[in-house]
Amino acid sequence: MKIICKKENLIRGLSIVSRAIPVRTTLEIMKCVLIQADGGEMKLTANDTSLGIETRIDATVLEPGSVAIDSALLTSIVRKLPDSDVTIDSDPYNAVSIICEQARFDISGRGTGDFVYLPNVDTDVSVSLSQFTLRNMTNQVIFSISDSDLNAAMSGVHVEIFDDRVRFTTLDGHRISVRVNELKESYDKISVIVPGKTLNDISKILSGDLESTVVLSFARNHIIFEFDRTKVVSRLIEGEYYNIESMLREGYETCVRINKREFLDCLDRSTLLINESDKKPVIIDITDEGMNLRLRSVIGSMNESIPIEKEGKDIKIAFNPKLLMDALRVIDDEEVDIYFLKYNYPCTIKDKEGTYNYVVLPVNFTEE
Amino acid sequence: MKIICKKENLIRGLSIVSRAIPVRTTLEIMKCVLIQADGGEMKLTANDTSLGIETRIDATVLEPGSVAIDSALLTSIVRKLPDSDVTIDSDPYNAVSIICEQARFDISGRGTGDFVYLPNVDTDVSVSLSQFTLRNMTNQVIFSISDSDLNAAMSGVHVEIFDDRVRFTTLDGHRISVRVNELKESYDKISVIVPGKTLNDISKILSGDLESTVVLSFARNHIIFEFDRTKVVSRLIEGEYYNIESMLREGYETCVRINKREFLDCLDRSTLLINESDKKPVIIDITDEGMNLRLRSVIGSMNESIPIEKEGKDIKIAFNPKLLMDALRVIDDEEVDIYFLKYNYPCTIKDKEGTYNYVVLPVNFTEE
Repeated sequence: MKIICKKENLIRGLSIVSRAIPVRTTLEIMKCVLIQADGGEMKLTANDTSLGIETRIDATVLEPGSVAIDSALLTSIVRKLPDSDVTIDSDPYNAVSIICEQARFDISGRGTGDFVYLPNVDTDVSVSLSQFTLRNMTNQVIFSISDSDLNAAMSGVHVEIFDDRVRFTTLDGHRISVRVNELKESYDKISVIVPGKTLNDISKILSGDLESTVVLSFARNHIIFEFDRTKVVSRLIEGEYYNIESMLREGYETCVRINKREFLDCLDRSTLLINESDKKPVIIDITDEGMNLRLRSVIGSMNESIPIEKEGKDIKIAFNPKLLMDALRVIDDEEVDIYFLKYNYPCTIKDKEGTYNYVVLPVNFTEE
Repeated sequence: MKIICKKENLIRGLSIVSRAIPVRTTLEIMKCVLIQADGGEMKLTANDTSLGIETRIDATVLEPGSVAIDSALLTSIVRKLPDSDVTIDSDPYNAVSIICEQARFDISGRGTGDFVYLPNVDTDVSVSLSQFTLRNMTNQVIFSISDSDLNAAMSGVHVEIFDDRVRFTTLDGHRISVRVNELKESYDKISVIVPGKTLNDISKILSGDLESTVVLSFARNHIIFEFDRTKVVSRLIEGEYYNIESMLREGYETCVRINKREFLDCLDRSTLLINESDKKPVIIDITDEGMNLRLRSVIGSMNESIPIEKEGKDIKIAFNPKLLMDALRVIDDEEVDIYFLKYNYPCTIKDKEGTYNYVVLPVNFTEE
């Protein structure tokens, strides 16, 4: 195989597919990116068997063929080459030369026989989404997946499509995060659990343009994302997702409208006093005078009041401030509405349009 | 004590003195910054006994006094406060309140009785230098100090003043780095060894303006740096520095003029193939055709040629590329001159004006 391509294209392609290189593996071939050259382009593929990515870049193919090369080594070499055309040349023994201007590297490649190619998946349905929406929705729910191995569903994002809506849901036992967006067309109901890592990786690769689209195709055990010249195939997490409808309870006895920035900054300050060995909650006291936040630990105490618009009863309730902060950080609104029922019931941060719904469980507290 | 000051001033002051807070210590008072309020300003002091820093910031002093506060805790609190006036209030029991707008923190301070104040040092001579020069010279030699405890002198920077010159020298057993700069006045000879950490810390604090000056004062066991509203007192390293004059040998049999950027990039590429367990050198082959660099390791091999202007004999010599790179990175010239004597003698990168002189030892090599 012998090809010539632009350094910047090769770098971009490698940075895309390298997300499917496992961090730890004893299989050398798993650390490799597969290069296939044919026609006027080269195809780069990496596959850790649960996630596979292929992408195409322009190249002058002097000799069609294929070779597998250690992804980390190839990336580090190409990164340090001059900004110019790069020639990759492999012989039948998989000896690889990488040449750029006066610089020449000789390394060992691998045969492509052991390489695990992307599965050929028959898909039933395809849904089109803007890259911007997919990336945003991912960032807005991904923080509340659980990385525990005990429950696979919790490590995934529940992706639902119904009518002209797409809904992403995550939960980790302390909170639920829900985001809803409109689609351009209506679809039959789809409900799958996508590994959190997959969506996280894709959100890093997407250009994120409002105009660029990504096509999601669904099969029995796989989801496929196609965008630009890239194709990502991911396994789905098997099983049923939690029924969260009952947890997104409608009732409330207190509703508070608060400046998001002020609330977030105040919670952030309270975290300074949290001791790793004795995690004290922030106590939120809502009265007609406003919202008072206080936290007392072995390190010291903080106390701050924020003006609010209040509707309903007074309430005193305590939270792990970091859980509220995670939700507030991904909300764009200047003012947010928070709904409370009782001191031992979850609170809900949601908008009237139903585009987001963040449910956070309170914690027990005692006041000295 | 009760004072009011601007958040930004307090942050700046704390970031300056916190460089004298030891990273690890069992003495709680050592982790503290001393705040002294009197007149129209507050003085912040930290002292790890080998390095002490004090700085003054504007403040409205409502009640003069002093208190010691854990530096890391105070800094983290002040950083997260709103950008506004900060009130620090301490009572006779050293309970400290930090108040900013609606936010109030209560933490425990410490009495100032245990605090190790900066030593009162009688100085003989003072030398004035631009902050820009001090910072630059430090960055240009600091990388070749040795952090071994075996030899204290190697962990320091040899600072010499003679006539209207200041010279900084460091060495670590593999290389010598020398920088010389002009002073505005002439002085009697001074020769001291300043801890590398001290100069490194100061270079981080200095504004680095060409117009701003720093005054260095010398005592028997101490050096004092005064600039802006900050004073740094550091112990000196005792003993004699190495006599390097014989090592800065004048003779050479090959001189090469090379584009610094090209040489640096090429050396950088060669490091990709260096294996931690088997550190191969880069072999430099200088002939009338140019300079050829090659490195072969278990990972692979690289080979690259760079055009040069050559004077004298051909030479083949090998180096740890990182040592050459460290020197080249801090040289501003587009073209550098490198002098070689023999394959087992150090090479020297120096300019004709004598402002820099980097000596690097070669390593043994065999070619397969």
